[in-house]
Amino acid sequence: MLKNKPDKMQPPMPASSPTLGQYLFDCLKAEGITEIFGIPGDYNFSLLDTLEGYEGIRFVNGRNELGAGYASDGYGRLRGLSALITTFGVGEMSACNTVAGANSEYVPLVHIVGAPKSRDQEAHKLMHHTLLNGDFGVFRQIYTHLCAYTAILTPENAEEEIPAAIRIAKRTRKPVYLMVAIDLVTKPIVRRTIPEEMQSATSKPALEAAIQHIRGLLNGTNNVVLLSDMLTLRYGFRDAVQQLALRLNLPAASLLLGKSSFDERHPNYIGVYGGAFGSEQVRNIVESADCMIAVGMIWTDVNSANNTAKLDRLRLVDIQPEFVRVGESMYEQVMAADLIAALNACGWTRSGPLPQISFPYDEIIGEPDQLIRAATYYPRFQSMMKDKDIVVVETGTFAYGMSQVRLPAGADYICQQGWQSIGYATPAALGACIAAPDRRVLLFTGDGSLQLTVQEISTMLSNGCRPILFILNNSGYTIEKYLNVKTSNQRYNQIPAWHYTQLAEAFGGKAFTAQVRTNRELDEVIAAAEQAQINQLCIIELITTDQLDAPDYLIRLRKYLEEQERGGR
Amino acid sequence: MLKNKPDKMQPPMPASSPTLGQYLFDCLKAEGITEIFGIPGDYNFSLLDTLEGYEGIRFVNGRNELGAGYASDGYGRLRGLSALITTFGVGEMSACNTVAGANSEYVPLVHIVGAPKSRDQEAHKLMHHTLLNGDFGVFRQIYTHLCAYTAILTPENAEEEIPAAIRIAKRTRKPVYLMVAIDLVTKPIVRRTIPEEMQSATSKPALEAAIQHIRGLLNGTNNVVLLSDMLTLRYGFRDAVQQLALRLNLPAASLLLGKSSFDERHPNYIGVYGGAFGSEQVRNIVESADCMIAVGMIWTDVNSANNTAKLDRLRLVDIQPEFVRVGESMYEQVMAADLIAALNACGWTRSGPLPQISFPYDEIIGEPDQLIRAATYYPRFQSMMKDKDIVVVETGTFAYGMSQVRLPAGADYICQQGWQSIGYATPAALGACIAAPDRRVLLFTGDGSLQLTVQEISTMLSNGCRPILFILNNSGYTIEKYLNVKTSNQRYNQIPAWHYTQLAEAFGGKAFTAQVRTNRELDEVIAAAEQAQINQLCIIELITTDQLDAPDYLIRLRKYLEEQERGGR
Repeated sequence: MLKNKPDKMQPPMPASSPTLGQYLFDCLKAEGITEIFGIPGDYNFSLLDTLEGYEGIRFVNGRNELGAGYASDGYGRLRGLSALITTFGVGEMSACNTVAGANSEYVPLVHIVGAPKSRDQEAHKLMHHTLLNGDFGVFRQIYTHLCAYTAILTPENAEEEIPAAIRIAKRTRKPVYLMVAIDLVTKPIVRRTIPEEMQSATSKPALEAAIQHIRGLLNGTNNVVLLSDMLTLRYGFRDAVQQLALRLNLPAASLLLGKSSFDERHPNYIGVYGGAFGSEQVRNIVESADCMIAVGMIWTDVNSANNTAKLDRLRLVDIQPEFVRVGESMYEQVMAADLIAALNACGWTRSGPLPQISFPYDEIIGEPDQLIRAATYYPRFQSMMKDKDIVVVETGTFAYGMSQVRLPAGADYICQQGWQSIGYATPAALGACIAAPDRRVLLFTGDGSLQLTVQEISTMLSNGCRPILFILNNSGYTIEKYLNVKTSNQRYNQIPAWHYTQLAEAFGGKAFTAQVRTNRELDEVIAAAEQAQINQLCIIELITTDQLDAPDYLIRLRKYLEEQERGGR
Repeated sequence: MLKNKPDKMQPPMPASSPTLGQYLFDCLKAEGITEIFGIPGDYNFSLLDTLEGYEGIRFVNGRNELGAGYASDGYGRLRGLSALITTFGVGEMSACNTVAGANSEYVPLVHIVGAPKSRDQEAHKLMHHTLLNGDFGVFRQIYTHLCAYTAILTPENAEEEIPAAIRIAKRTRKPVYLMVAIDLVTKPIVRRTIPEEMQSATSKPALEAAIQHIRGLLNGTNNVVLLSDMLTLRYGFRDAVQQLALRLNLPAASLLLGKSSFDERHPNYIGVYGGAFGSEQVRNIVESADCMIAVGMIWTDVNSANNTAKLDRLRLVDIQPEFVRVGESMYEQVMAADLIAALNACGWTRSGPLPQISFPYDEIIGEPDQLIRAATYYPRFQSMMKDKDIVVVETGTFAYGMSQVRLPAGADYICQQGWQSIGYATPAALGACIAAPDRRVLLFTGDGSLQLTVQEISTMLSNGCRPILFILNNSGYTIEKYLNVKTSNQRYNQIPAWHYTQLAEAFGGKAFTAQVRTNRELDEVIAAAEQAQINQLCIIELITTDQLDAPDYLIRLRKYLEEQERGGR
């Protein structure tokens, strides 16, 4: 990334140099960060003291590191970069899951760790929050497995390491790790001549060859489809991809991990492609195409609907951030933005009308006094959503059902669909509220998942956040019951029966709360919550009596697993 | 550990061989484990299905991995070994803090991880719960930094690896890590000829030389003191150490990390030695001794009271599990049990009476209508405790104050005083309740700490546990306010004001609850809780209006930090 210029040390300028902590926050503020999440601890006092006196970035306490970490993940998905402050050992080790998830799902998160005094580290003292073996490097070593970059900051290297870490986080869309000893945070940085950043650039011959190859696939056919996935969201290609669909007149689908990467009210949108489990109509369009142009695709077990989704590689144009693969040919050093621009200008356009699509949850069904079921509540969710809503969805039954709900225009959809760590969504909704205080945040979570990270509802309340929380009370880990086809009625999938509507009060806050059992109640409560949400957080408990009620997507997944099991695969 | 015998593979015996999962649980049951903690996930179904049908071990669901992990840590401290089951990636990465803490504090915990199907791993598929890079080894690599041993189990190696892991956990008193692919758990193990275990044994010449050296230190003086610390607890040396004190007529102190390693109602007990912050009387006795015999000592910043405790190495006999250091001389291959037995028989005895000691919280003080303060509630806690209570104490102000409370006979004291991860104590109390259902468990935790892991109160309720929970509501992280001498009134040390007595109901359970503001109320509530605890969990919220009220130990620590700060150190 860096040009090979010799670094020239300049004399320290104590009067004009910011402290290491100030400089760190200057760099983060320059990236648009206005809030940092975290938990205090005695090794990060100097970081937090600096931040408390710093203009332009506010510290948001989570209730624990996992929650604060997930909140910063949610924030980073909306803002493009986020930061988390923890303390050495105990704090950072509670954030491993968060950082691993950010790695898996391409979320650039700067994890900043306050460490013991340099002289105590150098003396290998047996300090609290260590393994009591004098090793102060072990936790950073752990994070080298989970981060795109790690560094130990000093006043001498700060001006090089901090920008490098941020640059790498932004380029790779992965988490990075910065550790700093408590006593060094308040030291003025030593000014350096910073090497110029080398920009990744497109190779013109590679681009031209790729376009020529793609033109060959497009020529003579009208049967072309666009697929948009996770990296479209993470790398900010959304507008470019939508323009491409318009320009080339392509029907466009998202993959599960890329939901909301293509505006679902855009005229060219046809739905989420989910192999054998999703919409049959979308599947036919995608799989029968002579050419599929995919942007930012990550081909996982979830995205491929347990490998029932079949994309013929020879017909696939796989546009990745810095390369493109056309059929079996790889073209490196081709930036996605340049390739998309060249496709726009390549002269080919699909002719004829776009396919007419019906979406599974367009029609509100169910008698008012019937008990709510997946088939009746998903259309109501779709209907209640408003333009620009942020829809945060927990891994589990909701993630599969919501994937088939058609989002409103300009919506963001946050779901940890690749890493799938239950408990993610509630703190992520907190992060969304903090990242976009002027937008409405809807959280859809299950009872089992909520219990893992419930305390961040308290953080929402104490920060004046006003999301609407839909909590599906189906008495346990329904998703796990669905996925286990070898046994049934597992005791381990049972959970304690909480009084979810009492949580806000126990956490010392006020909320609009309601329990819903019938379709009528759901309609009424949604109407009431839309008003209540203007002033307060809303908790809506959806009580289903059939523990195995689930969306069609999951029912088809279950059938597939049962067939596999019978086939002994 | 293993004799170098060639392993002879024997033919598989499917009819008689247990499955890998059954064999794993057989091995754990043989060590006395009757409960395993954990969280279900789709990669550990086969482990949990096996366990659900297994006689003699019960699975205890936690509300999240950190809580389940801490519970297994608490269980392990009482039972000598514990086990935790998590799922690949998302589950195990949420348990890193637990396992790091178990490592730091010498708790032998077997962390068992259910992993994706072997054929998916071999194909490097991009599966959920992975970093989506085809690397299935990365999480085990992380755990190599935190565990004494890690292994990937197969039917072929199970009979070697599982006993080896358990043996290493027991010998080192450290956590170990076992990963097993979901499809291999139900496969019959391949029987092997297992190499015989080599026992660590004492070298007779080393022992004799050490005893002779120690005799030299003892000769001609009566001024000798015994110190007992963490490894006395962990290695089960408690009885031997108490016998030694009686036999040699030695006054005996504990260190902070070793509290309850010497029975505090034993006639020879003089208190906890806490350098400049603890009892002055104990400090004088210890530091003026001509010879200090320390058993199982770990010399950390906390145990040394920020290095104000001074033990002259030349006068120190430092008995470790497998070696002893006398002055500057190291004697290796000397097992602690053998050394203690030899000391008992060495012929030297201290003459004269034991010192008369007064304990700081022996006297109940404070007018009934005065607001509770540390000075008034610690004596009441000491007075309410009963023989064989398990006293679980959170890191923070309570850990420092409780260190000076004199425990009842046969009490166990559980406090993560070295690793000091806030949030530990509540789930550890759950683990204690499960480990010792016939004993009373008292939890002393702070409001800030409780919020990190509050949901394990729900697990207590749903498992019929009946601890008494004392929650100190002092409006924030008081310990952090004490430890930060550079700034004051930090916003980041504030926490949301919860209604702690409403938590049990929100969690769907019933509990005895009370709020306490005055000494009289505390007396009355303690009396009522003693009755109520027979049938139900008790939550007692101690409300202090002075946010900086603290035990003397912490006040002295704060003064020391202020002096250091003024001195620019």
